[in-house]
Amino acid sequence: MHMAFCVAAILWQLEPLKEGAEWLWLALGISVLALLTVFYFAQYVLRADTGTEQMRTISDAIREGAEAFLRRQYKTIATLSVVLAVLIFIGYKVSPRNAPLATKTVIAFLIGAACSGFAGFTGMYVSIRANIRTASAARTSINNALRIALRGGAVTGLVVVAMSLLGVGLLFYFFGGLGTPREVPYQVVGFGFGASFVALFAQLGGGIYTKAADVGADLVGKVEAGIPEDDPRNPAVIADLVGDNVGDCAGRGADLFESTAAENVGAMILGAALYPHFGLKGILFPLVARAFGLIASTIGVLIVRTDEKEDPMQALNRGYYVTTVLAIAGFAVAVHYLLKDNWWFFGSGVVGILTAFLFVYITQYYTEYRYRPVASIAKASLTGPATNIIAGLSVGLETPALPVIVIGAALMLSYWFGLKAFAGADVVEISDYAKGIYGTAIATMGMLSTAAYILAMDTFGPITDNAGGIIEMSNQPEEIRVKTDRLDAVGNTTKALTKGYAIGSAALAAFLLFSAYLDEVKEIVVGRLGAGASGFSFDSVNLANVPVFVGAMLGAMLVYLFSSLAIRAVGRAAQYIIEEVRRQFRENPGIMQGTAKPNYGSCVDIVTTAALKQMVLPGILAVGLPIAVGVIFRYFTGFHVAGGVPMIGGQPINLIGAESVAALLMVGTIAGILLATLMNNGGGAWDNAKKFIETGQYGGKRSDAHKAAVVGDTVGDPFKDTAGPSLHVLIKLLSTITLVMAPLFV
Amino acid sequence: MHMAFCVAAILWQLEPLKEGAEWLWLALGISVLALLTVFYFAQYVLRADTGTEQMRTISDAIREGAEAFLRRQYKTIATLSVVLAVLIFIGYKVSPRNAPLATKTVIAFLIGAACSGFAGFTGMYVSIRANIRTASAARTSINNALRIALRGGAVTGLVVVAMSLLGVGLLFYFFGGLGTPREVPYQVVGFGFGASFVALFAQLGGGIYTKAADVGADLVGKVEAGIPEDDPRNPAVIADLVGDNVGDCAGRGADLFESTAAENVGAMILGAALYPHFGLKGILFPLVARAFGLIASTIGVLIVRTDEKEDPMQALNRGYYVTTVLAIAGFAVAVHYLLKDNWWFFGSGVVGILTAFLFVYITQYYTEYRYRPVASIAKASLTGPATNIIAGLSVGLETPALPVIVIGAALMLSYWFGLKAFAGADVVEISDYAKGIYGTAIATMGMLSTAAYILAMDTFGPITDNAGGIIEMSNQPEEIRVKTDRLDAVGNTTKALTKGYAIGSAALAAFLLFSAYLDEVKEIVVGRLGAGASGFSFDSVNLANVPVFVGAMLGAMLVYLFSSLAIRAVGRAAQYIIEEVRRQFRENPGIMQGTAKPNYGSCVDIVTTAALKQMVLPGILAVGLPIAVGVIFRYFTGFHVAGGVPMIGGQPINLIGAESVAALLMVGTIAGILLATLMNNGGGAWDNAKKFIETGQYGGKRSDAHKAAVVGDTVGDPFKDTAGPSLHVLIKLLSTITLVMAPLFV
Repeated sequence: MHMAFCVAAILWQLEPLKEGAEWLWLALGISVLALLTVFYFAQYVLRADTGTEQMRTISDAIREGAEAFLRRQYKTIATLSVVLAVLIFIGYKVSPRNAPLATKTVIAFLIGAACSGFAGFTGMYVSIRANIRTASAARTSINNALRIALRGGAVTGLVVVAMSLLGVGLLFYFFGGLGTPREVPYQVVGFGFGASFVALFAQLGGGIYTKAADVGADLVGKVEAGIPEDDPRNPAVIADLVGDNVGDCAGRGADLFESTAAENVGAMILGAALYPHFGLKGILFPLVARAFGLIASTIGVLIVRTDEKEDPMQALNRGYYVTTVLAIAGFAVAVHYLLKDNWWFFGSGVVGILTAFLFVYITQYYTEYRYRPVASIAKASLTGPATNIIAGLSVGLETPALPVIVIGAALMLSYWFGLKAFAGADVVEISDYAKGIYGTAIATMGMLSTAAYILAMDTFGPITDNAGGIIEMSNQPEEIRVKTDRLDAVGNTTKALTKGYAIGSAALAAFLLFSAYLDEVKEIVVGRLGAGASGFSFDSVNLANVPVFVGAMLGAMLVYLFSSLAIRAVGRAAQYIIEEVRRQFRENPGIMQGTAKPNYGSCVDIVTTAALKQMVLPGILAVGLPIAVGVIFRYFTGFHVAGGVPMIGGQPINLIGAESVAALLMVGTIAGILLATLMNNGGGAWDNAKKFIETGQYGGKRSDAHKAAVVGDTVGDPFKDTAGPSLHVLIKLLSTITLVMAPLFV
Repeated sequence: MHMAFCVAAILWQLEPLKEGAEWLWLALGISVLALLTVFYFAQYVLRADTGTEQMRTISDAIREGAEAFLRRQYKTIATLSVVLAVLIFIGYKVSPRNAPLATKTVIAFLIGAACSGFAGFTGMYVSIRANIRTASAARTSINNALRIALRGGAVTGLVVVAMSLLGVGLLFYFFGGLGTPREVPYQVVGFGFGASFVALFAQLGGGIYTKAADVGADLVGKVEAGIPEDDPRNPAVIADLVGDNVGDCAGRGADLFESTAAENVGAMILGAALYPHFGLKGILFPLVARAFGLIASTIGVLIVRTDEKEDPMQALNRGYYVTTVLAIAGFAVAVHYLLKDNWWFFGSGVVGILTAFLFVYITQYYTEYRYRPVASIAKASLTGPATNIIAGLSVGLETPALPVIVIGAALMLSYWFGLKAFAGADVVEISDYAKGIYGTAIATMGMLSTAAYILAMDTFGPITDNAGGIIEMSNQPEEIRVKTDRLDAVGNTTKALTKGYAIGSAALAAFLLFSAYLDEVKEIVVGRLGAGASGFSFDSVNLANVPVFVGAMLGAMLVYLFSSLAIRAVGRAAQYIIEEVRRQFRENPGIMQGTAKPNYGSCVDIVTTAALKQMVLPGILAVGLPIAVGVIFRYFTGFHVAGGVPMIGGQPINLIGAESVAALLMVGTIAGILLATLMNNGGGAWDNAKKFIETGQYGGKRSDAHKAAVVGDTVGDPFKDTAGPSLHVLIKLLSTITLVMAPLFV
């Protein structure tokens, strides 16, 4: 705490205090404070007992595998980032108009990428050490185990949100945001893109890794060899446990880092449009709201405790409720001080928080076996794998309906609140559109205000999953397994809920990011035209134009093709694992008899290499297509008028490329929201249909219905843990890439 | 032929001949001529030999089942149509401005529905009689069998296209189109909607029927009881054969009836916008081009013949090439006489014909086992059903990419040709947009000009499929089975190609129908404003508006939810069949021993009832959601400006409802194209992966790989034969429903 104030005090003196500038220092101070808390949580976890020698052996194998993967993955990502940074630099430099922005954009991009990498590394560093300590603590009390796992998860949660806040805040400051607050938000868009770029590969690579290992281990282990999950005789079992960390933990961390970063940047851009009314404070509001959310989440994590009898989910929910209440209170404070006490905006924030709640409930409905959807899949398993799959796909296709309605209602309501907020004020300079959109931006902030806590709960999942695996593999007594199983079940729920939350926040954020893009294109044109620009606005993405419609089709197509490549990558990588495990079983019969130790390392190596190789193609597609459409379509003249380039303010400027990219972005986002929801919830439903049968329904374990349900679960794996989460990242990548590349499209 | 001229001569005298009116008579005359040809083809089929007594017994059972289903289905559809007609009438009457259009719209709607029903009934009547005659002819020569099956299919092809042409042409005439040609096209939109409405239920009900019977019969027969396909011991075998007729034949017939009807109407509306330049001829061009296509298709069917050695697909392809060449020639003639020799438009037509070809090739690539996609699914079957499904879904998600690119290129190219077509002309009254869109309309006409032949090839599929089943069940010698198997294999290919063609034409037609909708909304507003309307145009569907974006999301969501309901319907109906077959096997062990005859009728009854019940909910959703969005969203004022309803030409007119519906339509169409392509091609790929293994790959029949591939095939069934084709219909329904309901949205 002391250090944070020192840093704030030093920065303070560099710049004479401006109206509202103190709020930037507050936000930065809180994020530094949060990083100190991270340090405290990490110490709390690392001080804990590490159990028996056997447990340590297993945990060390997991840790080594995860760290080896992360090292190689980061190396690949770093190379790709540098290549892209050079391309961005050249792309900006070739046009004299864009050249002045080149350096700032590239710096912001690289810092965004580095912050995302740092956050991912730190979270992972702690969580692969928290797993064994959770396992060990489960031998004494469930409360200890729960607290270690949650605080281990909170490291990821806090470091992700704090780093994105710190990164955006410092860039804003060092780019001179306190001097020219209306221009600087556009200059930090590179930060969001850097975050997205890293997130894409982190989620893709991790997602491919985790599911290739899981599918491979299950198919040869459970199905072919007939040995249980996490059985130490399975050579792929360590790779499977590594996968939980690199996919669920590092992947989702990168996903939400991107969400918060993109939303910070997008909301600041929209805040710039309200400058005439709110001044600097409207631009800083997103950072302050996020900072208060950090405090709320930290307190939420600190109060969680349980006992041997309570359902651990209750304890986590208590923490969530406290976080939510505090986040609302923090929002009210921020509205009071920064938005002139305008309670319509507070209403928008509450809409966002309610949206988060509804998404959590809808996800539960579609993925818990108490309800109709999962029960219908379990029942369909009675007639074999085909009907199980058909039922699961039918449920998956149904799942986007309610989320779409909720998002639609949230957008319209928060937009309307935004308009109402200015009803009495005399603000002719601000367009109605800017007012309404700021309302939706505030709803997004509301939804993301609890992000750190949600992410802590999410990372709780892989930690407890690993803890269960360690207990299982080190042959601990049955009653300890029961405890870790309880925690593991809670972890499965929290993982599913987070995915619902992540896609919901991505959907809500999408609209704000579109608008930021439109704003940016307008600024570019205005900058070029100078005096001739009076009255120009770029606020139409007209689907009735043929190239715009084609752009929209390509956006939706991108989502499908990207998913196809991601799923195919899992299938291919899983094939390698299966062949390797079969080879080991064949060449070393002692493994199955328990007399020889399998070679875990070779499986870890194989899946590492395969995952990193397979993540490149979908990644390049995701980055390349929007740029290609923007750059190529701008030369499609003659689509507005029969001859030549249209004239704007006396100069020939063709916006059809920029408009087509906007359609690609918007319709790609819609397609992505639907497909990701289908995949996340469909996959979750298949998983739990299997678990439902394992409780004894329809013949229980080893029945034909169970075998059918295992097929469904396996199909759902790449859906819910590779393609689905990668689509969240893709959606946001589309937004940030268009923001950064906008100058090339005009 | 004589009769057709008499009819033409009588009509001729009712109205003094106008510039270009003779082309209406020509189109009507050709369609009457086509109906006479239908009569000739039907006679050709019915005169043929009907084989042995045993064959007749089986065929009679199929015929009775199909007719019973069709009767009950039509009764349900008729009831729904009348209810909807009343609702449309009331909806129009409540507003004094729309009231004058009420009667004409309802008449057009009912005639469209009736024509579609008549075409479906006639096609089905002949095809369920052609199956046994094809089977019988296969005992003598493959040429005879091929010709009977193709001419049986041509009945469907010709009657569908001719009835849609006749219906639109006569309505145009009787609504006074020769007197006020610019207004009347808007008044016949009800015809397209009637066609869509019937098509939706025909395809849904038939699709649910066919796949419920197929999945049910396969799961209990092949998988559980271990008896071959089409084994007479399987109680569901007749229901399965009935399904081929009611789903593939009647369903696809209704689908393409809708395509041609909607395209006729839409293109005439766009032709009306070019009235200042082309006069009546621009409006009649679509009808004339379609009529020439009918002649081309008839000749194509007539020349098809083969011998015992040739691959029958070659013979069908020859017919297709001849049809295509003649259609191009007909197009040239029509351009020469009706479009002032403007060869840019001829270019647009060629673009459409090329698009059809490319779609056929792309479909082949994704569904034939010579190529990578199907081969990858077959290989993945080695590791079980889960990896087979994952590989299939990955292929399915990949399939939309190339079609989207082709459609995008076709739209842009034909639009550009449309602009070029007017480059030299002095036509200030016609907007550039209208010129370009007319180019895309002509591309659609080009694509649909071979529709009758394509449909004949398609209906060839269920006829030969049934013929094979009859031969199998009546224990004919092996060498005859080989012949029918060859024809059946060709039929599988043509069915797959037609689906590609249908979705391609739907995609191309979609843009023209959007534009017709925008035009119609504009006309409605102009009609209301009178003199105040000068300069008003409605040509923007701006995704950056929140309600428009929400409408777009709802459109995509509708596609998913509709598919979910359709697939779930198959699963449910299949469960009934499975239970019934199990009951029969259990209660009557003589069935499996071949000593007792199973009760085929009860299976037919069960699936009929189930299919009709299950088609209602998705149908109502498809019709209800667009209307609900249009009617509700128009009351969302204050989304353009902070207060009250926006003013246009001095009157308060809120177009946000109409604009949101347009977005629902466009993005729903994009989502539908992608999902339908995924489902059609994914399903076809699974099917052929299984067939590939059956050729002896990976262990051949009864291997584990084959069992895995059967699971994939079963999952693909409701994709490719229920949900996918129903989505084609849904896409066009969205276009026609918005055209008809437009007055309620403003």
